[in-house]
Amino acid sequence: MRLLVIGGVAAGLSAAARARRVDAGLEIAVLEKGSTISYGACGLPFYVAGRVRRAEQLIVYTPAYFAKERNIAVRTGARVVSISHPRREVVLDGGERVHYDRLVIATGARPRPADPAIAALPQAFTMHTLEDAERLKRFLSEKRPARAAVIGAGYIGLEAADALRRNGLAVTIVEQSPHVLGRDDAALTATVRQRLERFRVELRLGERAQGVERYDLVILANGIQPNVELAAGAGVELGRTGAIRVDERMETSLAGVYAAGDCAEAMHLVTGRPVHIPLGTTANKMGRVAGANAAGRRARFSGVAGTAIVSVFGMGVAFTGLSGAQARQEGFSPVAARITARSRARYFGGKPITVELVADGGTRRLLGGSVLGEDGVAGAINVIATALHHRMRVEELDDLDLAYAPPFAMVWDPVLIAAQQLSKMV
Amino acid sequence: MRLLVIGGVAAGLSAAARARRVDAGLEIAVLEKGSTISYGACGLPFYVAGRVRRAEQLIVYTPAYFAKERNIAVRTGARVVSISHPRREVVLDGGERVHYDRLVIATGARPRPADPAIAALPQAFTMHTLEDAERLKRFLSEKRPARAAVIGAGYIGLEAADALRRNGLAVTIVEQSPHVLGRDDAALTATVRQRLERFRVELRLGERAQGVERYDLVILANGIQPNVELAAGAGVELGRTGAIRVDERMETSLAGVYAAGDCAEAMHLVTGRPVHIPLGTTANKMGRVAGANAAGRRARFSGVAGTAIVSVFGMGVAFTGLSGAQARQEGFSPVAARITARSRARYFGGKPITVELVADGGTRRLLGGSVLGEDGVAGAINVIATALHHRMRVEELDDLDLAYAPPFAMVWDPVLIAAQQLSKMV
Repeated sequence: MRLLVIGGVAAGLSAAARARRVDAGLEIAVLEKGSTISYGACGLPFYVAGRVRRAEQLIVYTPAYFAKERNIAVRTGARVVSISHPRREVVLDGGERVHYDRLVIATGARPRPADPAIAALPQAFTMHTLEDAERLKRFLSEKRPARAAVIGAGYIGLEAADALRRNGLAVTIVEQSPHVLGRDDAALTATVRQRLERFRVELRLGERAQGVERYDLVILANGIQPNVELAAGAGVELGRTGAIRVDERMETSLAGVYAAGDCAEAMHLVTGRPVHIPLGTTANKMGRVAGANAAGRRARFSGVAGTAIVSVFGMGVAFTGLSGAQARQEGFSPVAARITARSRARYFGGKPITVELVADGGTRRLLGGSVLGEDGVAGAINVIATALHHRMRVEELDDLDLAYAPPFAMVWDPVLIAAQQLSKMV
Repeated sequence: MRLLVIGGVAAGLSAAARARRVDAGLEIAVLEKGSTISYGACGLPFYVAGRVRRAEQLIVYTPAYFAKERNIAVRTGARVVSISHPRREVVLDGGERVHYDRLVIATGARPRPADPAIAALPQAFTMHTLEDAERLKRFLSEKRPARAAVIGAGYIGLEAADALRRNGLAVTIVEQSPHVLGRDDAALTATVRQRLERFRVELRLGERAQGVERYDLVILANGIQPNVELAAGAGVELGRTGAIRVDERMETSLAGVYAAGDCAEAMHLVTGRPVHIPLGTTANKMGRVAGANAAGRRARFSGVAGTAIVSVFGMGVAFTGLSGAQARQEGFSPVAARITARSRARYFGGKPITVELVADGGTRRLLGGSVLGEDGVAGAINVIATALHHRMRVEELDDLDLAYAPPFAMVWDPVLIAAQQLSKMV
């Protein structure tokens, strides 16, 4: 009985590792097309920024580790070009055929294609793989560019802007949509804009990337798209979002074939609808579930809230669930409360922290929230995310028994202050 | 219609302020026996440590503020000596009688009495009021004590030890029970002991305070007890814990008489039984509920999880719900998982963080947890506390969609790692 996993980064390796824990006797092989596995792609901007010294520091595990510690065979440079499910085999680019009994597709995602004229510029870079980041680092040290354009104001775009600014470049971000981070949230966008301007980064929203060839450096960060071609070619059904459709067990439309990570959809906890929100945390969780099921245990994935956090020049910007505008688009009657409080006692370095909570006016159910500030942001968004998992109502949030002591918090946690404000409005 | 509140600190003022928001026309008066109101008692150790410069910085509101901004009459130096509920009046120590229609008792708590011989020592101090802290500060600067004994290893005892050590004193903590922080948790006690020893504070557990007269300074921090005499004298029923018994609306056994804060019991979310866990956060929440009901709105308090956090020489020590030992005493079949992970990426200053989760083996329900570390402790304990509010089961914790980015967190949050570990055990 052989479990084959296509893809050796977050979801693929989580699936393989989990499958091994479920079944010590299973034959498990991982095929990775790149030359490295298990790298922390989320760390790439910090390598460019200079905070991570060597690219190898971002590699968590090696194939040798998996072979020795987990009895999992990981092959790098193994590019799968097709899957033949009727024959239960995949074909590598050299023509080699590899048999499977169960298959996990964890093919990840790739940068959304840019305008070909821009992509062809010698000074254009993506920031998706270790190699991308190393190329960019070399370019920075050899060419000493002075002015950079970043195309896209998602996580990667914002983190790239931060990293380049720390390298001394003048930075302009150009984003086609009217908001940052793919979140339809005017207040959040305004706060991020202020922060960027304070660090003299120009933010141009609702604009196409015209004239970027005049910049010394161009970062292509206009989002990513799922790698679904292999799956689609094998007859695996795709969802409305374009990513691979899976059930709560991470099984695709083909029995015995699972998908997980950036190539797959997940159920949104608030809307109950499939979404494609490619993030490392989710990839790992989906991978675990896929691996458990592929190895014969029944496991289910309850879904995602879309929780995310990004640092914009030292300010944490976090959100979970739906913004007010997104909630309206989904057919809710959103009511939102936005408050600014202090993260902890002033004499322990407390900073202003802004919390917005969104609830449905009809049912009083919490739908989402955002947190912005220089301190305490991750903790606050995680409380809201946890509340979302349980479909908490506003008045229940009010009563949360959260920790307090002056070195850590204020007696009224900012989440509770926002909940009280919202209670008066719904 | 007059609402009278006895006590002008956390619960009393929260009740008065909430009542005002519910009913703009209500007559509201607060009687406080001390000379100041609304002080942050939790900040006292940091005033002694020197981090807070002036005691007045701990005062949040003044009577003038309440008069002007809230139309609430606050009298200081007004000591109530009895309550006559049949006549709906209270008697002050000068003999003055004050009428009420509704009454909120927020008489707080006081230090548990120490051995009279020790309490009478000229170098013995409590740390309960602003005046206590000011006396202690004067003693420190005038007498320059070299060796201190702290009686009690609760929050105040541990924070006092930290503050005195920062003042250069040699410190010994003597605690009668076998554990710190009133939490029957051997692992937590061991970690706190290590931390104390690293900062050369001696911790003597399971010992009575003998020979403390030989120390230059003695801090009496052997817990607090509720001020219930006034209530009991008026015929208000007390609970099994010795604090005032209340229903979920904070109403006592006398109709129209409410109690809130350190003098009252609250329902424990995990056990469903009344407990006396006097904390500032809880006092404020109970006060709000008492105030709302006293002003004619129906509000309920869902209870406490006993969430708390304390800094022990820069290490956060936090817990919520029940420890394993406490769970066993309450009739559960506890299973506990304890893991140590990293709070965030190493290159962003991540530190080791230890998370313990306790669940019931039969129902898989989460019962409590603890978190210890130098970073990320408040955020992690708040996620566990939020999960407790919803009676989450272990496998639900596993799926929480928590925020990740290297500056803030690891891709697997420590709470999730602990939940995975626990999943394998229950």
